Amino acid sequence: MIGIFDSGIGGLTVVRALMKTLPGLRLLYFGDTARTPYGTKSPETIVAYAIEDTEFLLSQGAQIIVIACNSAASVATDILKERYPEVPIFEVISPAVKKTVAVTQKKIVGVIGTRATIESGIYERKIKELDPTIRVFGQPCPLLVPLVEEGWLKRPETKRIVRKYLQPLKVRGVDTLVLGCTHYPLLKPIISAKMGRRTTVIDSSEEVAREIGEFLKQRPDVAARLERGPDHLFYVSDLTPTSQRIARLFLTERIQLLKAETMGYLPLLKGTLGVK
Amino acid sequence: MIGIFDSGIGGLTVVRALMKTLPGLRLLYFGDTARTPYGTKSPETIVAYAIEDTEFLLSQGAQIIVIACNSAASVATDILKERYPEVPIFEVISPAVKKTVAVTQKKIVGVIGTRATIESGIYERKIKELDPTIRVFGQPCPLLVPLVEEGWLKRPETKRIVRKYLQPLKVRGVDTLVLGCTHYPLLKPIISAKMGRRTTVIDSSEEVAREIGEFLKQRPDVAARLERGPDHLFYVSDLTPTSQRIARLFLTERIQLLKAETMGYLPLLKGTLGVK
Repeated sequence: MIGIFDSGIGGLTVVRALMKTLPGLRLLYFGDTARTPYGTKSPETIVAYAIEDTEFLLSQGAQIIVIACNSAASVATDILKERYPEVPIFEVISPAVKKTVAVTQKKIVGVIGTRATIESGIYERKIKELDPTIRVFGQPCPLLVPLVEEGWLKRPETKRIVRKYLQPLKVRGVDTLVLGCTHYPLLKPIISAKMGRRTTVIDSSEEVAREIGEFLKQRPDVAARLERGPDHLFYVSDLTPTSQRIARLFLTERIQLLKAETMGYLPLLKGTLGVK
Repeated sequence: MIGIFDSGIGGLTVVRALMKTLPGLRLLYFGDTARTPYGTKSPETIVAYAIEDTEFLLSQGAQIIVIACNSAASVATDILKERYPEVPIFEVISPAVKKTVAVTQKKIVGVIGTRATIESGIYERKIKELDPTIRVFGQPCPLLVPLVEEGWLKRPETKRIVRKYLQPLKVRGVDTLVLGCTHYPLLKPIISAKMGRRTTVIDSSEEVAREIGEFLKQRPDVAARLERGPDHLFYVSDLTPTSQRIARLFLTERIQLLKAETMGYLPLLKGTLGVK
């Protein structure tokens, strides 16, 4: 199975892209809803969570790992690759970066994401590694995740806030805009409308799905071993009506989340947190 | 010390109220920023977290516990009182409920909070226990916490969203509005302005501070044993520039958060989450 993890439900946009690009492959999702979001947490904490998420996916039979969380991709990818050298590991940042470098003509690029992603400077660094002449402008959009999770995808309040966030990038004249957060593809219509036709909007979920497709063409041995079938599995670390509702918004009415059981699951501080 | 815990930084409004109402008493705060927010998580998960938060505060010398988180207050208060019968435990819901019942004249009351708090129906249930003739209208306002944490306290976007949330309560003719979330006191000016002079706005942080003051008057033995001094302690489970920034917004520029150390802290799934 292809195992995908995210801090919460947002990574389902990657699932959606994989279902479209690689139909037939069986998918295994884990959303760490008990500790979501990651974007506001420290690198050390995010790395520890990402290792646990990966362990869970591997324990459930994942043969490939996709880090569908920009915060985790930003700080944990190298550590995971070193820790699991035998597992092909993909993440949502690099494929979007490659595509961006390939399509920008004016060499002026905008990146939107959570505060953590933008402040990490990861997209700018990776873009400049490939082409140092490209100018990159990052814009944190911390209210977009809560707006998406409310289902306010087309409301005037959302449009107004999107307009406010994108204005500085328009002024800079960017011709390519990277959606650096897995929630943002749901706002792509209003983001594209605001940016106008001359701006290419890069969806990191689609790019990572495409990259995995390329990899499997080059590695038929890996592709042959992957499980096939339509019965995807969707696990979360905390199951609530809200996570169900958001999952339906992201993927399909028919999605059924499962609680990652558990026996003793629930991160415990007791006995370890404490005495100064 | 009076120990206060919250899922994150919002409980600092309770700290602020305690500093004003009971100056001189030493305060110990714990914000579970590694797992914030609680409002979107299941009751079982919130109870487990609340027990761990309480254990931490007790291990650091707390003599009184204040649950400064509506989600935890709603689902964990009885369990904590049963588990720690010797510790006086206060929470942010009951004092606001008492005040509300005392001040409403039209007996039409509004409550705003996170989706979890409003869907739990806790305020309505507790108000009706005291006076079944009062009509209670709950309104979830899930975007207000992210807006406050962005520091957008007076922006037009915030005013617009507040107006949208409060409109149904205005239409119902409420004469009393409960701020059922510790973040909302920071929006009190625009909330009060929108509701108008004839609506009393109840701040649960102030009410719990008042109730603790009353308790200490009645129990001078407990009051005498409490530590005094201005050197309050502020712990968080994950320390980031963002949590520092938000803490300054809530309390004072001089606040310094400490990471709750740690040795092995960081909730671990490994070995416990997994095998189906």
